[in-house]
Amino acid sequence: MDKSEQDALKKAAGIEAAKLVDNDMIAGLGTGSTVKFFVDELGRRVQEEGLHFTGVTTSNRTKAQAESFGIKIVDIDDVSHIDITVDGADEVDQNFNGIKGGGAALLWEKIVATNSDRIVWIVDESKVVDTIGRFPLPVEVIPFGVQHVITRFKNRGYDPTLRVDAEGTPIHTDEKNFIVDLHMNRIDHPQDLAEDLITTVGVVEHGLFLNMVNTVIVGDPRGPRVLTNSNK
Amino acid sequence: MDKSEQDALKKAAGIEAAKLVDNDMIAGLGTGSTVKFFVDELGRRVQEEGLHFTGVTTSNRTKAQAESFGIKIVDIDDVSHIDITVDGADEVDQNFNGIKGGGAALLWEKIVATNSDRIVWIVDESKVVDTIGRFPLPVEVIPFGVQHVITRFKNRGYDPTLRVDAEGTPIHTDEKNFIVDLHMNRIDHPQDLAEDLITTVGVVEHGLFLNMVNTVIVGDPRGPRVLTNSNK
Repeated sequence: MDKSEQDALKKAAGIEAAKLVDNDMIAGLGTGSTVKFFVDELGRRVQEEGLHFTGVTTSNRTKAQAESFGIKIVDIDDVSHIDITVDGADEVDQNFNGIKGGGAALLWEKIVATNSDRIVWIVDESKVVDTIGRFPLPVEVIPFGVQHVITRFKNRGYDPTLRVDAEGTPIHTDEKNFIVDLHMNRIDHPQDLAEDLITTVGVVEHGLFLNMVNTVIVGDPRGPRVLTNSNK
Repeated sequence: MDKSEQDALKKAAGIEAAKLVDNDMIAGLGTGSTVKFFVDELGRRVQEEGLHFTGVTTSNRTKAQAESFGIKIVDIDDVSHIDITVDGADEVDQNFNGIKGGGAALLWEKIVATNSDRIVWIVDESKVVDTIGRFPLPVEVIPFGVQHVITRFKNRGYDPTLRVDAEGTPIHTDEKNFIVDLHMNRIDHPQDLAEDLITTVGVVEHGLFLNMVNTVIVGDPRGPRVLTNSNK
């Protein structure tokens, strides 16, 4: 599948997800290439159909995109709850365990997800996997002492790399932390790994989103396919 | 006991702890009013006795104080390990479980402690308690979504307050996070609480330091008293 075909599937999934946002809702708007199509469609509905809702964003990028359409964006601390959050994912398995954070926005994404009544992920078929872990697992780490955290991860066999930009400079998240990517190849015990990561001093958050999502919308050449998590 | 008597005990504990730093060591230097006496004594030894060692600090405050004595301070990521860290504590019980972070430097303090071969706390008698929790437990929280974290803590009965300065503005830690203080009064199950706090999305770190310290030096009118943790 070439990029334009993949984009068409992402766009179809984004349009499908935009149907779930109704007037007067508070909607969490995620981050990433698929979410961009979702926000485009919301913008179209706002401008052509008079849709009115309030958004909470998980990155400065999405905030700028949404506001360019005239969507009202508020701070997460200005709302008591979020009705629905639509976001992308880098991998998701049949148990609705996923990896997020390829775009380095995992911390705000997880905070928004944690405060959402319903979570929807929009992905293309390539993101649906038997076992998560082939996608590098992002871990957000405090810059102070990051080399010691990396050494710990190496000793545990997690194959960590500090994420850098094209010039080799460590990239900063919106919260000015670093991202360490773990190249696990496969994660057979995601709950154990999540526990180990979050209790490592210096780790702020990790990209494992375990059984958090309610609905996954998969871009498919025959039309968007909806997976419903019955354990939520 | 008035403040000058208490300061005399803190100073005695600080001087006792400074004896543990030898030439060529890498020493973690904590933060707080008792540690200030410890760093003063190290500075005296550097200048009068020619002591030479390398320091790693847990706050910008201590860094400035140490450098004013000509103590060489390096970044934690420039050393492979720390031989000994001397720090204060806000409370410590007989099981060597403690609360730290009254000075808002708990994150760097915990990172330095985690990477130290030996940890020494210097405290005055008032910090030694039967059950920790009367001192408000500091929790370092990401600003994004902090009100939702506070709501969760309220619902769990933790009696949280966002720490503010004299003007009512939330104080920022060195890492630009907020501090939420939990007024638990007594913490009967510190391990369970630590687990609950660290797995709360939005929490970066908390001030529970459970069975991490090797030695506690207590300022005492009869001379510093040394408590040794036999479970380390």
